[in-house]
Amino acid sequence: MLLDMAGELMVCQIVNPKKTARIEVPKDLIRKMKQLQPGSADPAWTAQTSEIHIEQQEIRSTAEQGGIFMYHTIAEKFDHLGVDNAPGQESQQKEVALDLRGEKLEGPAVDFSHGDVDAHTPTPGSFEVFAEGVKEGGSQAYTPYKGKPSILEMVAERISAFAGVSIDPKSELILTSGTQGALFLAMGSNIMPGDKVAFVEPDYFANRKMVEFFNGEMVPIHMAYEEARGCAGIDLEELEKAFQDGAKLFIFSNPNNPVGCIYSPEEIKRIASMAKRYGATLIVDELYSRQVYPGLPYTHLCAEADAPDNIITIMGPSKTESLSGYRLGAAFGTAAIIERMEKLQAIMALRCSGYNQAVFKTWFNEPEGWLADRVAQHRQIRDDLMKVIEGVPGVSARPTEGGSYLFVTIPELEVSLHDFIRIVRELAGVTVTPGTEFGPQYLHSFRVNFSQDHDKAVDAMKRLFTVMERYRK
Amino acid sequence: MLLDMAGELMVCQIVNPKKTARIEVPKDLIRKMKQLQPGSADPAWTAQTSEIHIEQQEIRSTAEQGGIFMYHTIAEKFDHLGVDNAPGQESQQKEVALDLRGEKLEGPAVDFSHGDVDAHTPTPGSFEVFAEGVKEGGSQAYTPYKGKPSILEMVAERISAFAGVSIDPKSELILTSGTQGALFLAMGSNIMPGDKVAFVEPDYFANRKMVEFFNGEMVPIHMAYEEARGCAGIDLEELEKAFQDGAKLFIFSNPNNPVGCIYSPEEIKRIASMAKRYGATLIVDELYSRQVYPGLPYTHLCAEADAPDNIITIMGPSKTESLSGYRLGAAFGTAAIIERMEKLQAIMALRCSGYNQAVFKTWFNEPEGWLADRVAQHRQIRDDLMKVIEGVPGVSARPTEGGSYLFVTIPELEVSLHDFIRIVRELAGVTVTPGTEFGPQYLHSFRVNFSQDHDKAVDAMKRLFTVMERYRK
Repeated sequence: MLLDMAGELMVCQIVNPKKTARIEVPKDLIRKMKQLQPGSADPAWTAQTSEIHIEQQEIRSTAEQGGIFMYHTIAEKFDHLGVDNAPGQESQQKEVALDLRGEKLEGPAVDFSHGDVDAHTPTPGSFEVFAEGVKEGGSQAYTPYKGKPSILEMVAERISAFAGVSIDPKSELILTSGTQGALFLAMGSNIMPGDKVAFVEPDYFANRKMVEFFNGEMVPIHMAYEEARGCAGIDLEELEKAFQDGAKLFIFSNPNNPVGCIYSPEEIKRIASMAKRYGATLIVDELYSRQVYPGLPYTHLCAEADAPDNIITIMGPSKTESLSGYRLGAAFGTAAIIERMEKLQAIMALRCSGYNQAVFKTWFNEPEGWLADRVAQHRQIRDDLMKVIEGVPGVSARPTEGGSYLFVTIPELEVSLHDFIRIVRELAGVTVTPGTEFGPQYLHSFRVNFSQDHDKAVDAMKRLFTVMERYRK
Repeated sequence: MLLDMAGELMVCQIVNPKKTARIEVPKDLIRKMKQLQPGSADPAWTAQTSEIHIEQQEIRSTAEQGGIFMYHTIAEKFDHLGVDNAPGQESQQKEVALDLRGEKLEGPAVDFSHGDVDAHTPTPGSFEVFAEGVKEGGSQAYTPYKGKPSILEMVAERISAFAGVSIDPKSELILTSGTQGALFLAMGSNIMPGDKVAFVEPDYFANRKMVEFFNGEMVPIHMAYEEARGCAGIDLEELEKAFQDGAKLFIFSNPNNPVGCIYSPEEIKRIASMAKRYGATLIVDELYSRQVYPGLPYTHLCAEADAPDNIITIMGPSKTESLSGYRLGAAFGTAAIIERMEKLQAIMALRCSGYNQAVFKTWFNEPEGWLADRVAQHRQIRDDLMKVIEGVPGVSARPTEGGSYLFVTIPELEVSLHDFIRIVRELAGVTVTPGTEFGPQYLHSFRVNFSQDHDKAVDAMKRLFTVMERYRK
């Protein structure tokens, strides 16, 4: 039995038989627990003093009342890592009985859970450089775990120019299996069991799951995205409190996924200087940083003068560039962290696919005007979807400032959010991602990735709201 | 402070400041520790009774005497996950002063750390099906996390026929980023902190590192590969003792990496039935199972009648098929574990690259006679390398039974193994992998992957031994 007597968080771990519980208990119970003597080696674990008798079941129910997860086996642990509602996983869902009302609405199916790389095709020339990579043979197939040196040099130079920093290709950059791979490496090489990890709500669905997987403690930071304009709306006081309470790691996406808002220069400045003051590490997910709509100021945290020693920035060509089928990502920043990420990549997947690495040659090297056109096309889709959204009473979304997402708030319905989303797929052929993937409280929101065919997307959004009216409370 | 009072393993974890120590201490110290009351929340952690006063430093030195690793920060943890000597990482090594003796030996450089996909080219048609996958567009780029259903069906059918089992493509199979990705998913979804994990020594270098990364306890099982013939030589009594002592997971490769030996039908039968008796989970790495040399019996553990409920088998086309540049792997077996692996893949890399998945179409579907030819070519290289090895006094290797590896034992030298390996690269242009990657005790062994050009390989091996003579004690 492992018993943390130090902090507000009590961690119980019964090693044999393998049972692990991570729970938060009320302060008064902590005080009582601190008086306990360790119990016997009884697998059922009973700890007691003359004053209090706490059995495993009691702790469990206390934890569950507090809404904090708790697991005793690896199976229980993974129960919390559900992916049924994750973007792109819809076809894996088990069938459930749905309260279907009215006729099906005809129209081309649209899957808003991810971008449509047929409507917005991959960077010109990407397949050709891949083919050259295959022809190159062994030297492209087997690269060092961080990536092929010549490609690292090229990517380092281009990202340095883009972000306004100076990246050493030998020690400050790693190529990964998509930005998801980069996130996993960054989180896995920064979280020790029990570490407090701060992240934004709402933010990318995998962030919180990674904290859980690596046995960290989740410290959500609220973002008032609906009210805020000209900034993301992150609660900086809450973030400071998290740092004061011992969070040594903070991860956030900018532009934000799922909202599509961007952080103001002031927000970035304050996040950087606060992290420095408290000695925290920052992971900044800039996956969509090449798709900021014209006229809006975008700030790369890594280029701040007053910044902490430990920063990892993540980018990749899966979104704006539509190269998602190649699974490419990159992370750059503090050499000591990049070294740990390399070690983790060595046991996780060895390397980002060798041949695929060749495709990086097209990145930040697109034909003249190509990127601006792509951004302009997406702005048009956003504008026309916003018109649909603003035309429906009780429905709202903050206009996207960067990236391809809209996080749509809907009114109270007579069915649950998850059922509504299944119903919309069934009746309207439209797939969206439930808000709960981005924070458990977003029970009246869904996310759309509007990197779709313009007309199909607008039509699909109209069908969605037509179906919604059948369920409005 | 976390204190495991239950077993022989004492786990100390000081959550704040983040310091984690996993140590094994002598039984008499455990007995003393069991009398302790938990200490204060003092970061330096001092626990005491009237009889004994143990400070952190003392525990650390006790642990280090016991040869067990111990870490207090994430940086310390990753120090143990070194990859400088891992196969393919040689170019990343820092320069060191070497005791170079004699002239350089001329000849084409050979990198025995991995196979040469230029000498043994990828499966015919593999690039073409990849290109078709890219043309297919979005439906190939974005697949469910486990893989594209049509490809899962195809792979399930073919592996079922090969291994003599019946795999449900919907629930018992997952496509991964190489077999390394499959191993990481299998280990990560089966190990809880503190779990005892049994693995073979020598075996694949990443197995032990994964146990460490997932905070498991390493339980090495000895394999007398040098003496044994007609079987791998695994110490089954030691394995049974590991199960009796609480190991709930056992991982091994068959054919073995780095030795190239295969497990006898009796060994497989006993491993299976023992795991069943003790309720253990098995991870069987069958990466090289298509390259077993003719006349030798190969046994798929997954097809055993008397087998445990929880088995994951791993295969992939990176080796014999030379498709390593695409990073493809597959794992099949118990549905509950595959489901956990899918959840882990969802946060680790989302999916095996979508376009790359198309290349699976060529797997187990090669042109008539192609595989037999490839195996025959490798047997010829093995035979001729064995002749070189057997001609050098004090040098030996067990002839490979499956796969492309030879694990070569060399005599005492006047330089360390790691220096010798650097010297051979410098003076002979030959790269091999040190035995220590496969178990810390293999200080007089190196591994070669002989999937190379025949003549260059034989010549390189001769140069290696010529250099070796300059350092023989």
